[in-house]
Amino acid sequence: MSYIKLSKKNYFYNLDTILKKTKSKDKIALVLKDNAYGHGLVEIATLAKEYGIKKAVVRNYNEAIKIKNYFEYILILADTNITTFSHTFHIAINNIDDISKLPPNSNIHLKIDTSMHRNGIAPNMLKEAIYRALEHNLNITGIFTHFKSADSFNSELFYQKALFNSLKIEVLNICEKLNIQSPSFHIANSSALFRCDDVVYDFVRIGLASYGYILLDQEFKKPLLKPVLSLYANKLNTIYLTKNQTIGYNGKFQAKCNMVISTYDIGYADGFRRIANNDEFLLDTGYKILGTISMDSMAINSNKDEICLFDNISSLAHFHNTIEYELLVNLNPNIKRIII
Amino acid sequence: MSYIKLSKKNYFYNLDTILKKTKSKDKIALVLKDNAYGHGLVEIATLAKEYGIKKAVVRNYNEAIKIKNYFEYILILADTNITTFSHTFHIAINNIDDISKLPPNSNIHLKIDTSMHRNGIAPNMLKEAIYRALEHNLNITGIFTHFKSADSFNSELFYQKALFNSLKIEVLNICEKLNIQSPSFHIANSSALFRCDDVVYDFVRIGLASYGYILLDQEFKKPLLKPVLSLYANKLNTIYLTKNQTIGYNGKFQAKCNMVISTYDIGYADGFRRIANNDEFLLDTGYKILGTISMDSMAINSNKDEICLFDNISSLAHFHNTIEYELLVNLNPNIKRIII
Repeated sequence: MSYIKLSKKNYFYNLDTILKKTKSKDKIALVLKDNAYGHGLVEIATLAKEYGIKKAVVRNYNEAIKIKNYFEYILILADTNITTFSHTFHIAINNIDDISKLPPNSNIHLKIDTSMHRNGIAPNMLKEAIYRALEHNLNITGIFTHFKSADSFNSELFYQKALFNSLKIEVLNICEKLNIQSPSFHIANSSALFRCDDVVYDFVRIGLASYGYILLDQEFKKPLLKPVLSLYANKLNTIYLTKNQTIGYNGKFQAKCNMVISTYDIGYADGFRRIANNDEFLLDTGYKILGTISMDSMAINSNKDEICLFDNISSLAHFHNTIEYELLVNLNPNIKRIII
Repeated sequence: MSYIKLSKKNYFYNLDTILKKTKSKDKIALVLKDNAYGHGLVEIATLAKEYGIKKAVVRNYNEAIKIKNYFEYILILADTNITTFSHTFHIAINNIDDISKLPPNSNIHLKIDTSMHRNGIAPNMLKEAIYRALEHNLNITGIFTHFKSADSFNSELFYQKALFNSLKIEVLNICEKLNIQSPSFHIANSSALFRCDDVVYDFVRIGLASYGYILLDQEFKKPLLKPVLSLYANKLNTIYLTKNQTIGYNGKFQAKCNMVISTYDIGYADGFRRIANNDEFLLDTGYKILGTISMDSMAINSNKDEICLFDNISSLAHFHNTIEYELLVNLNPNIKRIII
């Protein structure tokens, strides 16, 4: 059976690298949404807890409840359908109308749309949102926004940061006036943390970098990070091909000489994106995927019982013209995850 | 919350279309592997049972056990790590060495490699495989192969069929000689069934066509089939953009005039493949995906609370230069499936 190895050593190395920037573990909120970017929600929560991280960020209530006992503080990014109360949970408000949907005493983080125009409350509605939240007896525990292009060599980040800083002052003034506690402020993702020194605020939300990858234009200095996830397949069958025989659907690969190949038990249904119309694809290990990938298997010029398909997904992401974490997050959750 | 609708009417329509070719429900084995090509294993098993189908095909033991009570006969394609015995299960042997791994009295189907060179026993080893299976007290209940290019306008299918027919005679002779029951023979997938009239044998293995899609080169007449799965997203937030404002990561979409857009709760982590570096993508419904798709959301020029992202995935498959079922099979299993 195919399986995923998660390197604790690499994960902790990445967390050490992040910690050097934040100076404190309490300033790191690890993004574990979407099955921890495909790595395995509970497996990564276990490691993060062992390292001493107390804050996590997830997408919805179902994820939050699975890791409730691993963290003191969990930010839920996109789910307001929450009826049970927990001191651990902090619920992001992406839309001012969601305020009235939450049960009283819920902890909320108001997301501000500082120009990404995806989710969040418009800056000129922030004051109203605060008053509405208080009217509904919600606890405003956080104010945050998201960078639209922290990885890109342009000035957008500075514009958003300046706007956020002015909103921070506005919020603190309102809190003083109303005699309520001031919330936490957070803005940085992985790219912003490694691009700037002044984006930590109360904490940073780190997904990608913790898993060993970073998006940053070439003008910026990239930190050394180590991919955490590697994918292994097991042999289903070995075949002795004679010269000119072909493999797989429509025989896309043709043997140039007599050769030994094997099929392995990972296909595109496992989230390993299909490669088709391609004679062969060179893996980092030097082995080659031959012909079209099937739903449940692929052919490789190897006779080994077990084979590593990648321990760094960058070359596959490059081939598919996408970002590493799109491929990682889609790895089938049913593949067994093993921490090594 | 996003969800998937499964149309019972369309599914039964497709099964009716398949039945016209096979003439008997007993000659249809429905392929439910890989979460029923992403449709939902138990949901599709429920519908198939209601229609009166008795045979199913799955990838592994975990899938088989989940639908054991829905079918009389389940073929497991790629899993020999089976220790419990069931009259319902028939286990495919892809590799002659797997014969010794199975417990005595297991039902097995010997897969023959008739030139796809993926999985299966070489034709010249078939006799030995039969003797080895009998030595291990296994019941040979099936002999099968898989077409490498049933959808393509070439002669491969005829070559494989002729080879399979000669192997069938060989197997029947051996069975007579040994005084054992003759096994079932099966070869056809969806494409082969609709391409030829003489490929039914004891049953056909139908996945794709049952879900409403077919692969067949333009030289062949395609049956009318109706897609079963449609994908719906719900609104997270509405934004009033003024002219020249941009949306999402790196602001890939720029508003040409003042407009209302909304973000919806499906992103590439849900298995909806990422679209990036693209100004807008036209959905079949006439709405447009604007800018880069995020991990958990996308922007659309709509204000509706709920939106249909597709009820036929063909145009998305065409855009991504892949086959429909690669996109379908990767839809996140955690998305709720509703039968309508």
